[in-house]
Amino acid sequence: MELVERVLAGDQWAISKAISAVENGGPEGRAIMKAVFPHVGGAVRIGITGPPGVGKSTLCDAITGVLRPAGRRVGIISVDPSSAFTGGALLGDRIRMGRVAEDPEVFMRSMATRGAFGGLSRATQDAADLLDAAGCQTLLIETVGVGQSEIEVARAADCVGVVLSPESGDGIQAMKSGLMEIADLVVINKADRVGADKLEYDIRSAFELGLKSRRETPILLTEAHRSKGVPELVGAIDQFVAACRADGRFEARRRCNMESRLRQIAEFMIHHSLFEVNGASRRVEALAQRVLERRQSSYDAAEELVREALDPNRGANS
Amino acid sequence: MELVERVLAGDQWAISKAISAVENGGPEGRAIMKAVFPHVGGAVRIGITGPPGVGKSTLCDAITGVLRPAGRRVGIISVDPSSAFTGGALLGDRIRMGRVAEDPEVFMRSMATRGAFGGLSRATQDAADLLDAAGCQTLLIETVGVGQSEIEVARAADCVGVVLSPESGDGIQAMKSGLMEIADLVVINKADRVGADKLEYDIRSAFELGLKSRRETPILLTEAHRSKGVPELVGAIDQFVAACRADGRFEARRRCNMESRLRQIAEFMIHHSLFEVNGASRRVEALAQRVLERRQSSYDAAEELVREALDPNRGANS
Repeated sequence: MELVERVLAGDQWAISKAISAVENGGPEGRAIMKAVFPHVGGAVRIGITGPPGVGKSTLCDAITGVLRPAGRRVGIISVDPSSAFTGGALLGDRIRMGRVAEDPEVFMRSMATRGAFGGLSRATQDAADLLDAAGCQTLLIETVGVGQSEIEVARAADCVGVVLSPESGDGIQAMKSGLMEIADLVVINKADRVGADKLEYDIRSAFELGLKSRRETPILLTEAHRSKGVPELVGAIDQFVAACRADGRFEARRRCNMESRLRQIAEFMIHHSLFEVNGASRRVEALAQRVLERRQSSYDAAEELVREALDPNRGANS
Repeated sequence: MELVERVLAGDQWAISKAISAVENGGPEGRAIMKAVFPHVGGAVRIGITGPPGVGKSTLCDAITGVLRPAGRRVGIISVDPSSAFTGGALLGDRIRMGRVAEDPEVFMRSMATRGAFGGLSRATQDAADLLDAAGCQTLLIETVGVGQSEIEVARAADCVGVVLSPESGDGIQAMKSGLMEIADLVVINKADRVGADKLEYDIRSAFELGLKSRRETPILLTEAHRSKGVPELVGAIDQFVAACRADGRFEARRRCNMESRLRQIAEFMIHHSLFEVNGASRRVEALAQRVLERRQSSYDAAEELVREALDPNRGANS
């Protein structure tokens, strides 16, 4: 495929087109993914997650600013609907995108957060594979850290940085929502604002008290908008990844992530055969009507759907 | 089943046990759902959603305070990890739960937001069916409005109230994230705080400018902690539901929601047959290893998984 060759050569237009194909979930996307696989696996994937408004996009931009002079090719994938990187920015946010917009060695892509066919995580990881195959050495995956599918996206990375800011009780919310459990590093951004010290203290206390395995988790203070603390953050990420590579955690995690991913792709494929074939949606309609009329339970109706979808003779009848 | 009879009689312990069974996704839960279905459908389901910290739990409590003197039985389901109703409350939030805790005609249940087998939305709607069958006339479904699965939960209701507060740019975030698109009513809680007027103005402007179908959407101002504006909110909800019943939107929406739901249940069942049978997880492990060694693409590996799972002879071989 010519498109695949151009992706492997790092052509931005081709990468963008390939990611759209993969997002759509159609046969073209699947064919692309089957073609690029020998070139996937070299990039280190960093998840950058946290509540809305903590400055994740600015931080990604600042991290890129540190990595580029070191010669690393960077890919940024944003699955945060409130991100400055996403197309739908209502505000004048795009002024913050300076570094990303200008540098031909930085590839930036935002993912649709709703309606990604076959799941947000599946599409995002496919996109990451494409940027990996295209030669990016570091991938930043920005995702809002509230919500199941969004946390799933972050968890699939080699290293997860949870970003908080001193405002609006982020620390407490993050601990209650389970976000802290996926943190390899904690970043307190907007560290010049009131409450940063208190937030750091609260997180450390929670780590000391409740989460024993978390005592060693580094907490970094940054002011992303002027890059303060960002070289130290990049250093901490590199150090974490190196330590994981040395003691086998890196490989173990990739194996575990790949297992989840295969399940996601398998479910995506089955979803397609259940609901995208001819006549399936009329059948769902009719069964829904039966349930609403209390003639059948929802579970019995769903069982009929599954039985019919898996019937090898269905194709012949429809 | 004795448990089912006790659920139908409104026994709190039995309802709680039935919801746990349904959450686990095992055969007991399925049997319960198949048994209660003739008694499901009477309750009106109100989704209460919005960003963390806007006061959704307090609002649910206040709404309950208005409904109970009117003699309505109320069920509250919380799928918000930061909710005051959920078990994991870190803070002294439970003091806010007064009304709910004391009244035997109010049933309150929090759902696990992570790891709900077969999806959060499936489990939550099953739980709602159980409370419906148990005789609740109004169900309040509280869910944090950030994240795909959480928004899906809210969307499944008969009426969705999106709650915002004047703090922290909630309005802009909600509009960017698509939350406003599912709002039948908008509630500005903490309306005594600075910025409430501005938030109302911003939302109205956005409705006027961009979302034509939203021009009629009521915007209500509340101070939930002292019930101010809450009787008016309950009135607006009742009015919305009555209007929908009158012009057919109510039935149409239930049909559409039931279609999504049958799909969810069908996928949940297939997930089970894919990954929960003997030997499946060893097979996933082996295939993941092949992909990591770049001997096979992820899509080819997933295709093998699906082929094997759907092979009618597999049971015999394993």
